Amino acid sequence: MTTYQAPLRDMRFVLNDVLQIQKYDNMPGFADASPDVVNAILDEGAKIAEEVLHPINQSGDKEGCTWDNGKVTTPTGFKKAYETFVEGGWPALTSDPGYGGQGLPNVLGVAFNEMVSAANMAFCMYPGLSHGAYSAIHAWGSEEQKKTYLPKLVSGEWTGTMNLTEPHCGTDLGLMRTKAEPQDDGSYKITGTKIFISAGEHDLADNIIHLVLAKIPGGPEGIKGVSLFVVPKFFVNADGSLGARNSVSCGSIEEKMGIHGNSTCVLNYDEATGYLIGEPHKGMRAMFTMMNEARLGVGLQGLGQSEVSYQNAAAYANDRIQGRSISGTKYEDKAADPIIVHPDVRRMLMDQRAFNESARALLYWTALHGDISHKSPDEKEREKSDDYMGLLTPVVKAYLTDKGFAHAVNAQQVLGGHGYIQEWGMEQFVRDARIAMIYEGANGVQALDLVGRKLAANGGRGIFAFIAELGSFVDDHSGNADLKDYVDAVSVGKGYLEEATNWLMENGLSNPDNAGAASTDFLHLLALVSLSYMWGNLAKAAHDKIANGGADDPFYANKLKVGRYFLERMFPDAEAHLAKLKSGAEPVMALDDAAFLAS
Amino acid sequence: MTTYQAPLRDMRFVLNDVLQIQKYDNMPGFADASPDVVNAILDEGAKIAEEVLHPINQSGDKEGCTWDNGKVTTPTGFKKAYETFVEGGWPALTSDPGYGGQGLPNVLGVAFNEMVSAANMAFCMYPGLSHGAYSAIHAWGSEEQKKTYLPKLVSGEWTGTMNLTEPHCGTDLGLMRTKAEPQDDGSYKITGTKIFISAGEHDLADNIIHLVLAKIPGGPEGIKGVSLFVVPKFFVNADGSLGARNSVSCGSIEEKMGIHGNSTCVLNYDEATGYLIGEPHKGMRAMFTMMNEARLGVGLQGLGQSEVSYQNAAAYANDRIQGRSISGTKYEDKAADPIIVHPDVRRMLMDQRAFNESARALLYWTALHGDISHKSPDEKEREKSDDYMGLLTPVVKAYLTDKGFAHAVNAQQVLGGHGYIQEWGMEQFVRDARIAMIYEGANGVQALDLVGRKLAANGGRGIFAFIAELGSFVDDHSGNADLKDYVDAVSVGKGYLEEATNWLMENGLSNPDNAGAASTDFLHLLALVSLSYMWGNLAKAAHDKIANGGADDPFYANKLKVGRYFLERMFPDAEAHLAKLKSGAEPVMALDDAAFLAS
Repeated sequence: MTTYQAPLRDMRFVLNDVLQIQKYDNMPGFADASPDVVNAILDEGAKIAEEVLHPINQSGDKEGCTWDNGKVTTPTGFKKAYETFVEGGWPALTSDPGYGGQGLPNVLGVAFNEMVSAANMAFCMYPGLSHGAYSAIHAWGSEEQKKTYLPKLVSGEWTGTMNLTEPHCGTDLGLMRTKAEPQDDGSYKITGTKIFISAGEHDLADNIIHLVLAKIPGGPEGIKGVSLFVVPKFFVNADGSLGARNSVSCGSIEEKMGIHGNSTCVLNYDEATGYLIGEPHKGMRAMFTMMNEARLGVGLQGLGQSEVSYQNAAAYANDRIQGRSISGTKYEDKAADPIIVHPDVRRMLMDQRAFNESARALLYWTALHGDISHKSPDEKEREKSDDYMGLLTPVVKAYLTDKGFAHAVNAQQVLGGHGYIQEWGMEQFVRDARIAMIYEGANGVQALDLVGRKLAANGGRGIFAFIAELGSFVDDHSGNADLKDYVDAVSVGKGYLEEATNWLMENGLSNPDNAGAASTDFLHLLALVSLSYMWGNLAKAAHDKIANGGADDPFYANKLKVGRYFLERMFPDAEAHLAKLKSGAEPVMALDDAAFLAS
Repeated sequence: MTTYQAPLRDMRFVLNDVLQIQKYDNMPGFADASPDVVNAILDEGAKIAEEVLHPINQSGDKEGCTWDNGKVTTPTGFKKAYETFVEGGWPALTSDPGYGGQGLPNVLGVAFNEMVSAANMAFCMYPGLSHGAYSAIHAWGSEEQKKTYLPKLVSGEWTGTMNLTEPHCGTDLGLMRTKAEPQDDGSYKITGTKIFISAGEHDLADNIIHLVLAKIPGGPEGIKGVSLFVVPKFFVNADGSLGARNSVSCGSIEEKMGIHGNSTCVLNYDEATGYLIGEPHKGMRAMFTMMNEARLGVGLQGLGQSEVSYQNAAAYANDRIQGRSISGTKYEDKAADPIIVHPDVRRMLMDQRAFNESARALLYWTALHGDISHKSPDEKEREKSDDYMGLLTPVVKAYLTDKGFAHAVNAQQVLGGHGYIQEWGMEQFVRDARIAMIYEGANGVQALDLVGRKLAANGGRGIFAFIAELGSFVDDHSGNADLKDYVDAVSVGKGYLEEATNWLMENGLSNPDNAGAASTDFLHLLALVSLSYMWGNLAKAAHDKIANGGADDPFYANKLKVGRYFLERMFPDAEAHLAKLKSGAEPVMALDDAAFLAS
């Protein structure tokens, strides 16, 4: 009963008018991304999201994946949808043309993935994990490994997985027990149990390429002794055909809160044959190179679930009649007013909308910096974009999923009791959105990565550059009456960010627990300030359009109304985050560990 | 795999040391509630919650209720547990001794219900709804109706339901279509469909007493034409034995996000025989008399799910080893430190704990005022407590369920991926807690009730009395160094509350949408200020105990540490709520209704 309509107008506005990605046509792939190509790709992407993937979202949740003696069957329609996805060439969108890819900018891939993820989050995990495996092999594999695996991953004929977690270790991979014994032929025998492996086994593709972290005996202790291996489900013959089955098997699939259409597997490696990727004991470095991309891919899931749940809540609020407006009847012809007239219902929808539109801008902005960091001919520009990508990726991952979930909860609330029953589909958005706060590094881990690593990297080069960019926005537009409220917010936000950063630099070194205790509030503060900056840019682009023939287009006028809402109703939280983080570690750490176990 | 341990020490502290309920021994029922009796009842209540109800919480969720041709079967163990519940006399705890009740204070009933609800929220709905039906008949039924139904509801042999919602109307009951045709014998024939009827049909009791809102043809239009009827599932013979089956049937049960162990029914009334309760067309008045009590009963569910999820998350955080403390290894003997050492994990647990302890105080404080409003010999005292009960009930309902849910989500987050799979039980707490924000008046309706009705009632008598009480606390303790931080917070909070109330009074009349747009932020502001006041009282009681022999008892020292956390880390949100509500209706209402349907 739910519907999804890709927000194409808004996506184009961000890509073409705000970020103006065509400006970057001196970078590989961008020259091909003319507005026409961008529009055509988004149109086609919207079609598959709306017409193929969303119609099997609710049924996929209800049916779920089934496990039978090691075989996993995806819900009805998933196999056919995946075929359509592959036939459309979607797995190749941003991949290396040397292996059959289209080589388009990653920012465009992120826009496409937003639609896939909004339409069917469980489905999006299958190609999503494949792309992660593709990236790892592409970055660190040998020429032979690349030739063997990449073309089939790019075509979508095979899928991939990432194997990190074990029953006793997730965040702390140094505790890993999976072993890789070297063999005479240069391969390794992998033995151990991996859990929570998304898309670990299924019926969508002919082969599954597992990327597996394991320890080679005799290597360094802990995290420094972890290596990365590729373990194909079926061996690949020299001619590219599939050979015998490798000894990796799916022991069970998890029963979970949501994303029932995705198989979350326990994978047992029983002397499975694996091939080392890159150097021994350098597995974590290989993981980290693809971490930013993967984390953006989870951040967009938060936005996607907020967007699709918003659309369904807004439709319900315009349709469901109940009570009369407290400021006087608005729909005389109806037995009651639609609930959209009630300010508190509208508050929930406006919260979502003001988030969605600026979160989209921040996501694409960060993804664009990812492209620049790899592809710009200018070394300084690459460095700065790499700093931004590193700094903002944990923000996009954690903030967009924290709020994406909270907004899906709000959307559910708009439907009252109907939001709680399965039929209407709203509670699925909540259950699905919930996982994005956890996987690919729980949001608390993102916050620690931000304050413990990204903030301090290169003497704070990234955060100081970002603060300077905020300052430039303020300087550039301080005389512009149209943008005054945005300039004021960015200016205030810049001050908060400087204060918080200085506080962390002064107090985090003397007691690292101060940094840990401040981490989540700092991340949310940086997110709100970033969104105020995005709103500044969105408003500027809207005003430019209004001044150049767009005065009668409600899209631009509405954009400014939503921006105003952000400033008045969402930005005030920034100051509270600042106050909380400056209270330091002491209140957080005061209780003894054991005191948490008794009242 | 989850466990629940009733927080008896904290419950006793609030009842005996903070609220000192024994002071009220001039009121009926309170004289019987000596500390010994209170302790004995809480001990016995804890036993049934921990040993009987919690062990069937996860299995009840997994199995759910089943419907077969109109018959509903509750999950395995629920029938036996309900027998134990009835044998223990629990339905009689606070009921009228004239009908077999024990007549104990409602504040004690609320404490007991907190445990039942924490242990098994789906189960708690069965006796909870019965008590609602009991209250309606007790307040408005004829002597004959009381004699017929109350003793069996009080004993628990029969259960009850409340029938308000229909497919096209929930909040706006004026749209109701269920008809009640008067019959020659004084009874009515009830025809219509009611949905979302909790405990509407089940196998726990011999009879179910449905209280049904319906319209007598020819009565006033809309909400003023609604009457209340009692419709027994089985007719009751003159001798009290059960007669024929009435023509009310359960058409189906809902598949929902959570509380699977509770049957949520579609009930079809097909010329069912009903008996008018109270006067014709005065059904809403009868409903409102029991509304406060029912809403406190939902608020406590929010606290209950936060408490039980906290306990399980705290146990996991002390057990699960992962990584090392960033301020240096804390557990040398282990391969890694338990995750409780990480400040951000602790932040989530402290958030929960600071909420739980003060929410409990606010809940019991409000329930005590409910007792006083009914039972005090002093008319002025009754009036003031009635004002407080009216003012704080929507706050308890909405804030405790909003935050109870948010904290269950936090607790789930502590477990990472294990929180997302069903096995660990954490995701059930989230799914169960979610409904409490919706039923018994969605939280937005609570906020509107607060600003639209409760705030303005009797010229603002309630809010001004409460503000004056905050002022008295500040005056009484302004010289007390121990309480300085709490006095400061209450003083600041009082200022916010005055400013917000004045803003509403000035702007809500000129444009009621200002009140609507401000409502949820006002409710959360009032909640935070109320909690700061509760923390002031908790801290005072703890200091009194420390000064009187409790200096070595970690309970009191920990209480002050948790209170400090509240002040530093949770209270700062109050100012943001004030800023948001003062931005008024304009940003919320700026978009056209139809603009919500397109980007």
